[in-house]
Amino acid sequence: MKLKDVGEFGFIDRIKDGALIRKYLGLVGIGDDCALFKVEEGKSVLLTTDMLLERVHFLRDLMTPFQIGYKALAANLSDIAASGGVPKEAFVSLAVPENLSLEDLLEIYKGMKDLAKKFDVNITGGDTTTSLKDLVINIALTGEIDEELVLYRSGAKAGDIICVTDYLGDSAAGLDLILNHREEMHNFPTLTTKHFMPIPHIEQGRAISRSRLANSMMDISDGLASDIRHICKASKLGAVLHEERFPHSEEFNRYIAEFKPEYLKTAIGVGEDYCLLLTVSQENFAQLKKTLNDLGHQLYNVGEMIKGEDVYIVNKEGEKSILKLSGWDQFKEH
Amino acid sequence: MKLKDVGEFGFIDRIKDGALIRKYLGLVGIGDDCALFKVEEGKSVLLTTDMLLERVHFLRDLMTPFQIGYKALAANLSDIAASGGVPKEAFVSLAVPENLSLEDLLEIYKGMKDLAKKFDVNITGGDTTTSLKDLVINIALTGEIDEELVLYRSGAKAGDIICVTDYLGDSAAGLDLILNHREEMHNFPTLTTKHFMPIPHIEQGRAISRSRLANSMMDISDGLASDIRHICKASKLGAVLHEERFPHSEEFNRYIAEFKPEYLKTAIGVGEDYCLLLTVSQENFAQLKKTLNDLGHQLYNVGEMIKGEDVYIVNKEGEKSILKLSGWDQFKEH
Repeated sequence: MKLKDVGEFGFIDRIKDGALIRKYLGLVGIGDDCALFKVEEGKSVLLTTDMLLERVHFLRDLMTPFQIGYKALAANLSDIAASGGVPKEAFVSLAVPENLSLEDLLEIYKGMKDLAKKFDVNITGGDTTTSLKDLVINIALTGEIDEELVLYRSGAKAGDIICVTDYLGDSAAGLDLILNHREEMHNFPTLTTKHFMPIPHIEQGRAISRSRLANSMMDISDGLASDIRHICKASKLGAVLHEERFPHSEEFNRYIAEFKPEYLKTAIGVGEDYCLLLTVSQENFAQLKKTLNDLGHQLYNVGEMIKGEDVYIVNKEGEKSILKLSGWDQFKEH
Repeated sequence: MKLKDVGEFGFIDRIKDGALIRKYLGLVGIGDDCALFKVEEGKSVLLTTDMLLERVHFLRDLMTPFQIGYKALAANLSDIAASGGVPKEAFVSLAVPENLSLEDLLEIYKGMKDLAKKFDVNITGGDTTTSLKDLVINIALTGEIDEELVLYRSGAKAGDIICVTDYLGDSAAGLDLILNHREEMHNFPTLTTKHFMPIPHIEQGRAISRSRLANSMMDISDGLASDIRHICKASKLGAVLHEERFPHSEEFNRYIAEFKPEYLKTAIGVGEDYCLLLTVSQENFAQLKKTLNDLGHQLYNVGEMIKGEDVYIVNKEGEKSILKLSGWDQFKEH
């Protein structure tokens, strides 16, 4: 069955079910000109938006429609996590090519709804249109937060410890397995799952912002090598990263040993980790780590902020040099 | 110059200028993980989102980049107008093909900024990514409104007068001129301008919602023939449209006389009028019309809501029949 068999409004009728997790304050949902929602008194609104295109950001023959929907929403949830907010309302725009079946389209929504339910997020509205060739997904996601709890990229201080909330490079390793070592993928189930279905660090982001212990935060989408530069630029500081401190999963280490890819690029140059990158003063680090550990989460020290504007890496031999790896900027030639 | 010559963050630096019209309450703008904004106390948030694709919704060789940006934002503003709200924050996602120059991209932003300035709207954030072939634009736009002033599609009552706030069919006629009669376009400057650069009826929408005189409202994007069906469905009513009452511009009438297109299709079957479609009780009509006239705006009576579920048209000879024309549903075969 194709989208054209049911029409835009027939499609809306089919996706309404299960789209609203929380009771909808605002009365208007999918199908009217606008969605209406209330914001809790005293809170500010966070909004993030991401556009994903087939063949640029994902390949339809490598991911199930469920995974495509899940991951698209996960990337947006990670942005809300990075500000320390509570995610609320998702607005999904889809441009659908002729060769995508209605069943696949509903599976994309199922992937989004599954993840939305976990984090108490409504799929509140959106826009569905046709595409001549590639599937395009744009999600706009709102969140709420107390304004004084928002963590910015610009708040880092010289001397701050640079922290991450998860193993680095699992997603990058998963992607390489999917693209280049499909016959051995099954030996690394965590890596491929972390690439296809990352769990956004909403709980960690909330705990960190509520603790008021951190100075700056963002999420790692382009790789630590690239993303730390945003914190440096916004905070007018430099950074030193310590390779020997980079946290890795057992599967990641096994993957590195077996396939011998360029280690540093895989660990910090590809991205899609969707964990948090934050800075915290030396004196607050232990308390913040305990706060997260008590909730069953992790905090790893991977470096420190310094005066200046350069980003250095200290390799496993203790040699310090300017970090050349810049991570993923899709507009630059690679 | 190409986007890749400056990179994503070089591009952000170039579009920041003039993007924020109002003072920005929330401190974070373009370039952080999320945008943060405050909502006036007691107000609710409206959010609308629209995705436009090259070759599906617009042709790059028929429109200037400025017009593409202008019109993309205009369509979203029209949705906020349709709810009676005040537009506030725009979030722009762009997927940019290799063959679009940086200059053209900045012109697209200029078109958006020009219109945004007219309606005191901030371009607050967004996402820029690459596309393999077609330009894709998604805008998510927020607005504010008192919840009790929101007008829905579902509020129409049997006996209500069906009204529109502008001439019908100008944009459709303009499109036909652009596509099929380019050498005579210059004789119909208003029609082509209304197609390329429609003025969203924000002021009219505000005045109508604040008057509390109307029962239901939406904007005309797919054509009156299609859009009145949404009000009928949501309000569980039927409608009668009167062809002889349809308001038309002098240029539209001249275009019809000269090119003899299918009249009804052009007037109510193509759309992109981006004016408002509303229903108001018989007793409130005159007062609402005066309210709009006093502001220099128009209100035209084009039919009435009836019990039942069918949509009828009364032609210029006074003959009543079921309206077959359904307007634009892009997913259905035409």
